[in-house]
Amino acid sequence: MHPYRTHSCAALRASDAGQTARLSGWVHSKRDHGGLLFIDLRDHFGLTQIVIPAGSPVLELAEKIRVESVLTVTGEVVLRDAATKNPNLPTGEIELRAQQIDVQSAADVLPFQVAGHENYPEDLRLTYRYIDLRREKVHRNIMLRAQVIASLRRRMTDLGFVEFQTPILTASSPEGARDFLVPARMHPGKFYALPQAPQQFKQLAMVAGFDRYFQIAPCFRDEAARADRSPGEFYQLDFEMAFATQEDVFATLEPVMEGVFREFGGGRTVSKAPFERIPYATAMEVYGSDKPDLRNPLKISDVTESFAESGFGLFARIVADGGQVRAIPAPGAGDRPRAFFDKLNAWAREAGAGGLGYIIFAEDGGKGPIAKNLEPERVAAIRDKTGLKAGDAVFFAAGKGDEVAKFSGLVRTRIATELDLIEENSFRFCWITDFPMFERNEETGQIDFSHNPFSMPQGGMEALEKQDPLTIKAYQYDIVCNGIELSSGAIRNHRPDVMIRAFEIAGYPESEVEARFGGMLNAFRYGAPPHGGSAPGVDRIVMLLADEPNIREVILFPLNQQGEDLMMGAPAPVEAARLKELSLALDLPKPKPAVVKGAPAPKKD
Amino acid sequence: MHPYRTHSCAALRASDAGQTARLSGWVHSKRDHGGLLFIDLRDHFGLTQIVIPAGSPVLELAEKIRVESVLTVTGEVVLRDAATKNPNLPTGEIELRAQQIDVQSAADVLPFQVAGHENYPEDLRLTYRYIDLRREKVHRNIMLRAQVIASLRRRMTDLGFVEFQTPILTASSPEGARDFLVPARMHPGKFYALPQAPQQFKQLAMVAGFDRYFQIAPCFRDEAARADRSPGEFYQLDFEMAFATQEDVFATLEPVMEGVFREFGGGRTVSKAPFERIPYATAMEVYGSDKPDLRNPLKISDVTESFAESGFGLFARIVADGGQVRAIPAPGAGDRPRAFFDKLNAWAREAGAGGLGYIIFAEDGGKGPIAKNLEPERVAAIRDKTGLKAGDAVFFAAGKGDEVAKFSGLVRTRIATELDLIEENSFRFCWITDFPMFERNEETGQIDFSHNPFSMPQGGMEALEKQDPLTIKAYQYDIVCNGIELSSGAIRNHRPDVMIRAFEIAGYPESEVEARFGGMLNAFRYGAPPHGGSAPGVDRIVMLLADEPNIREVILFPLNQQGEDLMMGAPAPVEAARLKELSLALDLPKPKPAVVKGAPAPKKD
Repeated sequence: MHPYRTHSCAALRASDAGQTARLSGWVHSKRDHGGLLFIDLRDHFGLTQIVIPAGSPVLELAEKIRVESVLTVTGEVVLRDAATKNPNLPTGEIELRAQQIDVQSAADVLPFQVAGHENYPEDLRLTYRYIDLRREKVHRNIMLRAQVIASLRRRMTDLGFVEFQTPILTASSPEGARDFLVPARMHPGKFYALPQAPQQFKQLAMVAGFDRYFQIAPCFRDEAARADRSPGEFYQLDFEMAFATQEDVFATLEPVMEGVFREFGGGRTVSKAPFERIPYATAMEVYGSDKPDLRNPLKISDVTESFAESGFGLFARIVADGGQVRAIPAPGAGDRPRAFFDKLNAWAREAGAGGLGYIIFAEDGGKGPIAKNLEPERVAAIRDKTGLKAGDAVFFAAGKGDEVAKFSGLVRTRIATELDLIEENSFRFCWITDFPMFERNEETGQIDFSHNPFSMPQGGMEALEKQDPLTIKAYQYDIVCNGIELSSGAIRNHRPDVMIRAFEIAGYPESEVEARFGGMLNAFRYGAPPHGGSAPGVDRIVMLLADEPNIREVILFPLNQQGEDLMMGAPAPVEAARLKELSLALDLPKPKPAVVKGAPAPKKD
Repeated sequence: MHPYRTHSCAALRASDAGQTARLSGWVHSKRDHGGLLFIDLRDHFGLTQIVIPAGSPVLELAEKIRVESVLTVTGEVVLRDAATKNPNLPTGEIELRAQQIDVQSAADVLPFQVAGHENYPEDLRLTYRYIDLRREKVHRNIMLRAQVIASLRRRMTDLGFVEFQTPILTASSPEGARDFLVPARMHPGKFYALPQAPQQFKQLAMVAGFDRYFQIAPCFRDEAARADRSPGEFYQLDFEMAFATQEDVFATLEPVMEGVFREFGGGRTVSKAPFERIPYATAMEVYGSDKPDLRNPLKISDVTESFAESGFGLFARIVADGGQVRAIPAPGAGDRPRAFFDKLNAWAREAGAGGLGYIIFAEDGGKGPIAKNLEPERVAAIRDKTGLKAGDAVFFAAGKGDEVAKFSGLVRTRIATELDLIEENSFRFCWITDFPMFERNEETGQIDFSHNPFSMPQGGMEALEKQDPLTIKAYQYDIVCNGIELSSGAIRNHRPDVMIRAFEIAGYPESEVEARFGGMLNAFRYGAPPHGGSAPGVDRIVMLLADEPNIREVILFPLNQQGEDLMMGAPAPVEAARLKELSLALDLPKPKPAVVKGAPAPKKD
């Protein structure tokens, strides 16, 4: 007989009754029924009830051991009485009558309980993560993560993608966030950087002729933590395709995403491929966001014209001043009490807006402060444009450019939440496309890149030469699910001449482009295929599927919000000799002097 | 029609003749046949011959483009003449008659050629790795690596292992090599370390109840490069099992290794599972190595007794002094000329030995200098013990302990090489088991750990309490293929009391064990399962399969031997502001003053 187990703790069934079996696992719970002792023995796979009859020679030992001790129990599989069968447990028809118990590991008193669903402070949980991970929900989350990643891998492989490992000790990234640095002992004064993403390497893999690359890639950014962003490291499904158009990238990723969300969505609705493609400008106008949550059915309309030179002076002046007015529908809100509208108005003021104007549509026209001053035919035009009817209401956001767009997006979310319109149990995907290549920097008045300087401008060199830069779009896209951006992506600019011209428009002379991005530019000079890709965030995918708003719930051993590993004690000071070896010295910030009232001024010698 | 391709460059067949097709790829080669131009267009998948007929409107363009430019070629698929068919090429029955050529990327003059098999300096290849990777052999190696890793993953998953990602920004390892450090910006004066291996995390995953873990794990060691070791990062198939014995670990890994080597071995012989288990002591005696190459059929014998108090005074004195004599057979070497034996003797002296004694067995007894002085019955006994016959020879290594064992191992390799006895085209696996737990430090005379202090001693606490420490073995094992150690592994010590006692024997007080390994010890105090595992090196597996002695040939973007990424320019200096942000300052080694003859002594002010 195997020294530890003949079966897992989820394996035994009624048909095994009469056999001798050996199980190993953790003492999940103990129940004493007057001399008769029950133990729920738990392993990764499940639970089996152990029974130690009164008078058993192992009873004394069993009574002493604490929960979460690890035991090996040998005994006879016996059928439970009909009354004590547990239909909710796969092993619920039997129990193991213990003849022998070996204590593999006796547990001390625990810092918190494994059984049950009590909440404990996060730092306590992370300090004892190895205990926390035994708890049902987090154990399930981590298994879900592993299964999602395995599924992503299988799906990418089935599509002809090949997984490569790209370097982790590499050069500082020219773009984006702050790198983590690694001192190079053999090269005093020099540093490696951890990759923010394998962006350059995946493009170079295309230049090297590898056609379809992917990687479940560790990425590193020295940024502050957020609920949906781990400090330090995170994983993305990084992929890149040669000789691919934007539509090829979409057609590749869509079935992968739809498939994974169906596989692990537990019956929740999932958008069918092809996902809706929404140009950036439309997204800002209709959803007030470049990350629209399509579970929210509300669509924003532009009603600027209806207020131009209208009787409602406030909006008329905004329009005359070049501003816009957006209408956010509130279907069925017409019968809400005045308090409803007042509360939203107060919320808008808190959010920094002047207020939140509205019209209630009744059978005989508009009601409310705006309608009082607005010509009835204009009220009717707004009702037509927004597709509303008597009994509905509409709210307005007025202002300039992006500001009014973003505010109307906030209003859209708020109203849908208030009216309980957001679809539950569904995953709604869309692509946001046609991001502008350039934008005007409001502070300097100069032209900057809007997003990624390495994306291919639509229209190529000709567009750069002839078009107003602010009208040029890029082959740059985001994939969004339920209002969460899973990834940016792009068809890359693989032409050195086009790249140099694009940077020139953004104010960078060729010499600087060569100095900063010479590696990539050089590679493109020796035969580069057109290529593009994307890199959906793995942690975010798992968060959506597990319905967890906190990223640390889907990572095996996460850093805490302060970037500390409380279990292993990282980061930590190092010995002086290690620093010396790295040609480094500490240059610690000076402690701020404590201000002591009445303390004498420091004397000078 | 797709803007880039309707087919890959490996797809078109005779049955496609008459169709219009579009291909994209690199200009592998160009041949001008008197106005008629042939281009071999290459992509990841294969080659297709493009023909541009004399007088074609695209001829002028085609003549100008350099090799390695990227083209999209549209044209008619036509059958080749019987005379020009290429049976070695899957597309060799057809060619594409170009009607349209679009230059996606015009190549500059290359630093080296992609076509052909010329050798180029490694640093040049690594600087332009994206060109180097287009070359047939390295492209194939990298694809082999990807396929091997995918196969390892599939095999582990099929065995019920689940892949988890363990942290990369973590705490300094208590054992082993030098860590790479990462300054923690938010924690001035503190550092993360990159993991030398996920050793502690995989054990903690077992403590957390995850039963069977694996990971294709990036590992980091700040060590000098060797041919078989990359500076910086490398990958291992890291795995760990709960409730497992040593035999369970062997039974798990054997079919994975055998399967992968059969799958990618191209018909080479592979050891059948179960692999031979060789205790460490036996390996040292019979193979003179704890990494025996079993392709070498020679086995070493101990012939100490035959020389004790014998007529061959040199060895008799060594034996009297506590030394040993080992016999290394040289079957069929009896008829080798004197120069053969002299050469080996000279080699042995260069290797630091006093020389290399031998006996040639003839029908009528032993020949050579040793046999002259050794009693004939002793010569016969040696012949019997080594299983040799007339026409064979035997060499001797004499000395003490490990020294004689290791030298006899070198002789074994050398003789087998000289006699061409090493089996070709085969992968011979074995396990080395029963490593000693402790050894005596020759310098200090104290007892040290032999290998891994965290392995379980055989016999557990009782052995530690009652046995001579130097006789205690550990549940510690290596897997070896063709003389290359693929991995160490162990059944871990999961009992704090046993661990503290083991460290005590090695001279560490409990307080120091708690201070240095408190994290793991604590974890084991809350219910830890017996567990063990191993971690075969992925790079080494691929090197064996690709038959490449240089690890950089099987890594996509490797650092060079000096730990530099010549393509991306890493490591590199960083701006002073970045260091400031990290609370660090450079503390560069002082440049050695140049000694200038006759220069005046520096003046003191």
